[in-house]
Amino acid sequence: MSLIVQKYGGTSVGNPERIRNVAARVAQWRDQGHQLVIVVSAMSGVTDGLLKLAKQVSAEPRDRELDMLLATGEQTTIALLAMALQDRGIPAVSLTGAQAGIVTDGVHTKAKISNITPAAVKKFLQDGSVVIIAGFQGQTAEGQITTLGRGGSDLTAIAIASAIKADLCQIYTDVDGVYTADPRIVPTARKIPEISYDEMLEMASSGSKVMQSRSVEFAKKFGVIFEVRSSFNDNEGTIVKAETKSMEQVVVRGVSIEKNQAKVTIAGVPDKPGVAARLFSSIADAHINVDMIVQNVSLPANGATLGHTDITFTLNKDDLPKARKVIDALATESGAKEILVQEGIAKLSVVGIGMRSHSGVAATLFTALSEVGVNIQMISTSEIKIAVVVDEVRAAEAMQAAHDKFGLSTLLK
Amino acid sequence: MSLIVQKYGGTSVGNPERIRNVAARVAQWRDQGHQLVIVVSAMSGVTDGLLKLAKQVSAEPRDRELDMLLATGEQTTIALLAMALQDRGIPAVSLTGAQAGIVTDGVHTKAKISNITPAAVKKFLQDGSVVIIAGFQGQTAEGQITTLGRGGSDLTAIAIASAIKADLCQIYTDVDGVYTADPRIVPTARKIPEISYDEMLEMASSGSKVMQSRSVEFAKKFGVIFEVRSSFNDNEGTIVKAETKSMEQVVVRGVSIEKNQAKVTIAGVPDKPGVAARLFSSIADAHINVDMIVQNVSLPANGATLGHTDITFTLNKDDLPKARKVIDALATESGAKEILVQEGIAKLSVVGIGMRSHSGVAATLFTALSEVGVNIQMISTSEIKIAVVVDEVRAAEAMQAAHDKFGLSTLLK
Repeated sequence: MSLIVQKYGGTSVGNPERIRNVAARVAQWRDQGHQLVIVVSAMSGVTDGLLKLAKQVSAEPRDRELDMLLATGEQTTIALLAMALQDRGIPAVSLTGAQAGIVTDGVHTKAKISNITPAAVKKFLQDGSVVIIAGFQGQTAEGQITTLGRGGSDLTAIAIASAIKADLCQIYTDVDGVYTADPRIVPTARKIPEISYDEMLEMASSGSKVMQSRSVEFAKKFGVIFEVRSSFNDNEGTIVKAETKSMEQVVVRGVSIEKNQAKVTIAGVPDKPGVAARLFSSIADAHINVDMIVQNVSLPANGATLGHTDITFTLNKDDLPKARKVIDALATESGAKEILVQEGIAKLSVVGIGMRSHSGVAATLFTALSEVGVNIQMISTSEIKIAVVVDEVRAAEAMQAAHDKFGLSTLLK
Repeated sequence: MSLIVQKYGGTSVGNPERIRNVAARVAQWRDQGHQLVIVVSAMSGVTDGLLKLAKQVSAEPRDRELDMLLATGEQTTIALLAMALQDRGIPAVSLTGAQAGIVTDGVHTKAKISNITPAAVKKFLQDGSVVIIAGFQGQTAEGQITTLGRGGSDLTAIAIASAIKADLCQIYTDVDGVYTADPRIVPTARKIPEISYDEMLEMASSGSKVMQSRSVEFAKKFGVIFEVRSSFNDNEGTIVKAETKSMEQVVVRGVSIEKNQAKVTIAGVPDKPGVAARLFSSIADAHINVDMIVQNVSLPANGATLGHTDITFTLNKDDLPKARKVIDALATESGAKEILVQEGIAKLSVVGIGMRSHSGVAATLFTALSEVGVNIQMISTSEIKIAVVVDEVRAAEAMQAAHDKFGLSTLLK
């Protein structure tokens, strides 16, 4: 008998029929003798509906009241899932985030979990009930309702799993697990049976958006082993855990791609302390997420006066108009020569903890791309990732080439 | 400056536009310098929608989970109303029943308020905020979410008004106040400016369903003065309060009618102790509300053997099939001779605390009815009410006649 936390996202509980399906799945696990805690999101579409209502009564709804409003979405799902389980004769009890003892700070709409007091959860488990917890929400020590922001339900599941020392945490979603590459782009992509937290983090930040980084970071910090799997079939998913020796034998874990990117180069910036700081502070203040940042050494041959440099960064194409305003102002102020913007690019990343101890991964990637004639526009590396910027229309081809070159299609059976 | 509690029902907050209208009304009162606590129901239709979802996942949803589900309805409204007020620049804060300190017993779906700890309400009022409270809900001392059952939001308003010692409690609804008779039936009916708790209770139990008796009883018990008025205009409503000397000068306060009734006579029941008790216990166990009960003395002339009697009671026509099963079983068992059921009847009630000290009210009513040739089928009286059962098709006419005879059309200006 194990103690298992399962999390079902909005699509998995998107209508009454699907909620009944989740109940059937939970019943199967319970029949095997396991104790179960289920974390659920709002039914898909519900949160958007609530936000629409908010916009109809207020031009700029306040965060505290948005939390009060949005928290009803998950509360609806927990009640319905408890009913569906009871309808199958399974004792079940629903708990709001507050009732489950999830205490957060007071930053409404993006609260952080401060601590969890799972007394009620444990009591109801001991009584033999399946405990159903509203994801995405908590309350402050003063009793104000808060929500955890994007990826909040995953975070609830992993935090609860940590607090009650669950044997396993299963994140049910609409994909089968984490793949060596997006199977819609690379038909030979394989599901990865096991992956380390760090690899999962790099995959997530590289466009393979199975989960928000935040939840993976939390799991890593507290050593929560979790499995990403599908709520629409019975296939085993991907286990995410601390790295093991055997993992290191795999050099490259997967290849991911992020489209819809843009590249901004600020050319001829005076090469003195504080310029980059000022630039990226302004961009952060405008709530624009910048991804890759590359600054090369200043070389006169490059057309730059000595003492001047070029800074290039990538960002989501949709953020470009907002970013442009900030940059234009700053570029003038800092005495930059020119601003170059390029859309139609994609970021291709190769991730794997094995590459730390294996040289030549970068060389292999560059060779793979050159063999299919894809030009590399930018390069950036971390300890377990190599990312390159390529032309968006060649991205799929580049991904397939890299996937093949690293032998990912055959590596896992 | 007064401290005012206002309650708005589901129709008054039925859509975003109406919520904005309520915000405008609240703003008006606030501009006059008043402190305000607003209690709201779920938007009309929302509760039914949630119940429909519940039925889609469970044949017989459990009460605890129904409470968890239904409580989201009011929670949605409080958040939206707070946003709408904030959008007008008015500081506002929403509180769930639990956050407002409403503690109930553990009888889910029809919980009773045990006590109120309005610390949070008082704090936010002191901060200068309009405090918006979810009606119809509370929590047990153990932190379980409960709902108060029918008329629950009115009860929340009156209980909060009592707990914070409000100067006035206004129940906003879709009617202008309490009338001497239903204006749709009696065109000369007038709005009653002031009415006693007892009269209001008798009016409510006589088909003038402005409010559930329960809230009026609570107000009477704790001496909460409240006003029933419309959320769709600015007319003054009806003040409900303890009786005063001047009230007693009005003999009859109003006439009300209840249609859709049925009458059941159990004839020839052995006239011995326990028979009636057993009959009405069985009916109560089946959750059927019986209204008038009449048992006359046993007289042999009436065809009944001495030692036998006839018991007649009225009930809602819709409850007849359920009631019939219980009665058939019991009648056989108790040795009753016959069961007579009659539909198509209505109950006409005349209510007024003045009738206690004025004789002849019954005579006046009977005369009024005989003048228009309406036959009286049953009579039942209390200290401040006379109720008669008449043919349903003649009910409106009978009501108009009684209204005229008691001078209600001209009594109030």
